[in-house]
Amino acid sequence: MPNYTLYYFNGRGRAEILRMMFAAANVKYMDKRFEFNEWDKYRKDMPSMCVPVLEMDGGNKMPETMAIARYLAREFGFYGKSNMDMMRCDYIADCFYEIMHDYMRYFHEKNGRFRFNMEGSGSGSGMNSPTGASGDMNSKFDTYLQWRFMNTCSRVLPFLERSLEMQNGGKSFFMGEQMMWCDMMCYCALEGPFQENQSLFSKFPKLMALRNRIAGHPKISGYLKSRTNTNW
Amino acid sequence: MPNYTLYYFNGRGRAEILRMMFAAANVKYMDKRFEFNEWDKYRKDMPSMCVPVLEMDGGNKMPETMAIARYLAREFGFYGKSNMDMMRCDYIADCFYEIMHDYMRYFHEKNGRFRFNMEGSGSGSGMNSPTGASGDMNSKFDTYLQWRFMNTCSRVLPFLERSLEMQNGGKSFFMGEQMMWCDMMCYCALEGPFQENQSLFSKFPKLMALRNRIAGHPKISGYLKSRTNTNW
Repeated sequence: MPNYTLYYFNGRGRAEILRMMFAAANVKYMDKRFEFNEWDKYRKDMPSMCVPVLEMDGGNKMPETMAIARYLAREFGFYGKSNMDMMRCDYIADCFYEIMHDYMRYFHEKNGRFRFNMEGSGSGSGMNSPTGASGDMNSKFDTYLQWRFMNTCSRVLPFLERSLEMQNGGKSFFMGEQMMWCDMMCYCALEGPFQENQSLFSKFPKLMALRNRIAGHPKISGYLKSRTNTNW
Repeated sequence: MPNYTLYYFNGRGRAEILRMMFAAANVKYMDKRFEFNEWDKYRKDMPSMCVPVLEMDGGNKMPETMAIARYLAREFGFYGKSNMDMMRCDYIADCFYEIMHDYMRYFHEKNGRFRFNMEGSGSGSGMNSPTGASGDMNSKFDTYLQWRFMNTCSRVLPFLERSLEMQNGGKSFFMGEQMMWCDMMCYCALEGPFQENQSLFSKFPKLMALRNRIAGHPKISGYLKSRTNTNW
């Protein structure tokens, strides 16, 4: 097993799915966290000026949340076995990622990380400001990005609820009796949105029950108790 | 080999990578295309009210562009073999997908498909309009989405150029002598952006040369000559 280092902000965000997979597999890694005001120091060392990034044995750094998740899923046995099963795992995980992606863009904008850019200062994600956009515009971008996120939820969640239900009436996991990485995505991708607005999920009882089952999983429950507590 | 049907608009868009993979593998499929004004008819039959969707033997429909691409890549031998190779293929493809995703959102907005929604009519992607947004706002969203797309290009392309160069000085493909699905992503994800603004890519000669090599690949060159010609 290589020595893993995971680089991300001091938040759950896009990295939490990776941390949860390490925990579920009981594999050690260095959880390198930094604050937003330290980002300028790290940004240039990150392959595509984005995090999360996974480093192995102090060598190459690998970008892209979902590419890292897939690598860990294959390594730790959290994927399906047949090509069809892997595809099912993939599209379920990708549906959750759509939510995570749109939520994270909305969340950072809302919390002024994007606005901070507007002033021409450093940024939380290596961005420069769009030409002609003023501070006043930002609240409109908030509205747009919130709508984008809500729209993705309303497209994707009913499909995920149905998909879960097709497997043993929704009483086990997406792929059957074993918890896979697409199940962990259900926990992590919905965590921020759920904290913000529980009512968004009231129509999806099977997904909510799945989240509780994951939280109660022996490896995960220990992790959730001991993990670093952050707002996001 | 199952009977494949691919559902998408009558455009290259997000589906072209899948069509190209079918062509490269010389596998037949039904290329089901529809116009934007037919979308209302199809939308409800699509798992997460989005396309592309792949149907097998007239049975289950599978959503998510990249999940379908990965399935086809495993099926047709366009993936790496080791876990590390698969990860490399994945993060390169995901980087290109970031560009494709941001470009498609910008492109649809710019072409009024989103504005059409604003009127409360049907939509190109099953969307409803954000509360309080007016027609006048749309040009600002254009600017925002264009900036988002340009920003992703400037983050991701230098990394992809370097990654390609690390493999045989950039003279072959991303994974070596064999064309993989991440190479085909380089062709498809950049096609729209390249048509719109070639100068965006002048700093990335290795990627541009790779696109030419792909276009010259025996299977791909035949496909490019015979494919349905569309604006996007």
